[in-house]
Amino acid sequence: MSKFSITIIGSNSARPAYGRSPSAQWLNIDNHFYLIDCGEGTLSRLIHAKLRYTKLKAIFISHLHGDHYFGLAPLLFTMNFQRRVEPLYLYAPIGLAEILTLQLKQASTKLGYPLHFIPTNTQKTALLHRDETISVHTSPLSHRVPCAAFRFAQNPKNRKLIKHKIPTDLSVEKRIALKNGENIYYQDKLILNTEWTKAPDKPRIYAYCSDTIYDERIVPFVSEAHTLYHEATFTEAQRLRASQTFHSTARQAASIAKQAAVEKLLIGHFSARYANLNPLLEEAKRVFPNTFLAEEGKTFNA
Amino acid sequence: MSKFSITIIGSNSARPAYGRSPSAQWLNIDNHFYLIDCGEGTLSRLIHAKLRYTKLKAIFISHLHGDHYFGLAPLLFTMNFQRRVEPLYLYAPIGLAEILTLQLKQASTKLGYPLHFIPTNTQKTALLHRDETISVHTSPLSHRVPCAAFRFAQNPKNRKLIKHKIPTDLSVEKRIALKNGENIYYQDKLILNTEWTKAPDKPRIYAYCSDTIYDERIVPFVSEAHTLYHEATFTEAQRLRASQTFHSTARQAASIAKQAAVEKLLIGHFSARYANLNPLLEEAKRVFPNTFLAEEGKTFNA
Repeated sequence: MSKFSITIIGSNSARPAYGRSPSAQWLNIDNHFYLIDCGEGTLSRLIHAKLRYTKLKAIFISHLHGDHYFGLAPLLFTMNFQRRVEPLYLYAPIGLAEILTLQLKQASTKLGYPLHFIPTNTQKTALLHRDETISVHTSPLSHRVPCAAFRFAQNPKNRKLIKHKIPTDLSVEKRIALKNGENIYYQDKLILNTEWTKAPDKPRIYAYCSDTIYDERIVPFVSEAHTLYHEATFTEAQRLRASQTFHSTARQAASIAKQAAVEKLLIGHFSARYANLNPLLEEAKRVFPNTFLAEEGKTFNA
Repeated sequence: MSKFSITIIGSNSARPAYGRSPSAQWLNIDNHFYLIDCGEGTLSRLIHAKLRYTKLKAIFISHLHGDHYFGLAPLLFTMNFQRRVEPLYLYAPIGLAEILTLQLKQASTKLGYPLHFIPTNTQKTALLHRDETISVHTSPLSHRVPCAAFRFAQNPKNRKLIKHKIPTDLSVEKRIALKNGENIYYQDKLILNTEWTKAPDKPRIYAYCSDTIYDERIVPFVSEAHTLYHEATFTEAQRLRASQTFHSTARQAASIAKQAAVEKLLIGHFSARYANLNPLLEEAKRVFPNTFLAEEGKTFNA
């Protein structure tokens, strides 16, 4: 079974409040693990949730406001302390490389694992990362500092063999050919690919937009996604404050989801002013009914 | 009543384990507030403990290993977000100024309050900070990177008026003179200071030593303290590892306390290898009986 789940590690804005923590999301894509943003305390919450952070393949940091990256250095240093040796890919604005370099120097520490730092491009849409499991694209968001949206797409999978139809003596080469969609010959008989295989699960796509002012230019980028996370720091009652601080309201997040015709919307990055998040959820649902609160500890399918 | 309390916010080493967090201590000295070290998550734990972090007067960072300062930037930025305007004094190795400057630049943020950064001297014993409540001295520790011990002493207080002896018509000037230890005339009669006043509470002194290899050169510096915090990362079973990593064992911490003849020893900076801290406590008590575990949430009098 194909798997693409998103676990919310934190989704509060700026400062912790009501037990809510700053931004971080854990992606499990066919048992490969990725992290988006890394607010303070992410390491402790990953440990608490028993998520295997030592197996992380790549980390994506949207921008350099502290509530999106202050938990990164503790995570990187701890993996070093635990003798990680596997390479780790880190995608972030270039300024983060300078900060980490200084932090390592001051601690007289050299990482024992290769940290591949790749600066994000916050000027145009681009392919950012590709491995055997996913492809990740980035696109600029409109925020007070350079900020990137991310779109995670599962790679297309091979066709699935219909097990009860496959003769036990069929060679490995022919099984691979079938999975690749080719027709084969078996005992001098042509077997059409569709006779012995079925279509793979469709690749799922997840888009992550935090932080941003309401900006419809992102719609084409997120239209390819099934599930969209869009920040919703405020309700419409704070619409002016939202635009002044380059943030969005719940209604605006829902409007982007509606225009992009995604299947599902997750909202987060809640202002500390909201003890109760239901007004944000209700506001978004009036525009886009299939909306969910990205609350800590919750897991969603992409 | 004079007050000098130490609340343990975190006392684990290197990485969080068993619900224990990295180093931070909160000092309440006559209702003036100070913080020593600031590991990741300090802000959340201060909020949880309902400690008034927005009223902090000064922060003291012993050295630039992450478990002693990764929680500082979140705290400083959050106080800015909450519109702090009062000046804050920050004592730390000079490298921290570079890191904070970069973090502010990348976030396009200017602090709305004056942050007075004063580099610590990790070469010799010196007076570091003085205000109306305390004097703080520093002395070098022996660690893998430059590291400072701190000694917090309450300033001497005025003598206390013995209220039932003071005539209601005694002038303010003469009351002040009495508090300052002077003799006065009242109705043409000489009043000896000791007749109408009693001695003030003795200033209490607290010394903080983290992180350090066992090094007796610190003994004279901490001998002036009533209460000593000394790191005890390992037990004697890990004595070699302790010296290799420039840390101390519980027995070594107790030996410093004994040589310095302090009243009370707090031990902390526990290695993540210890689920149960009692072996550390028992080991220290065999050398210095009045030892306590600096466990999170506990408050001690200096």
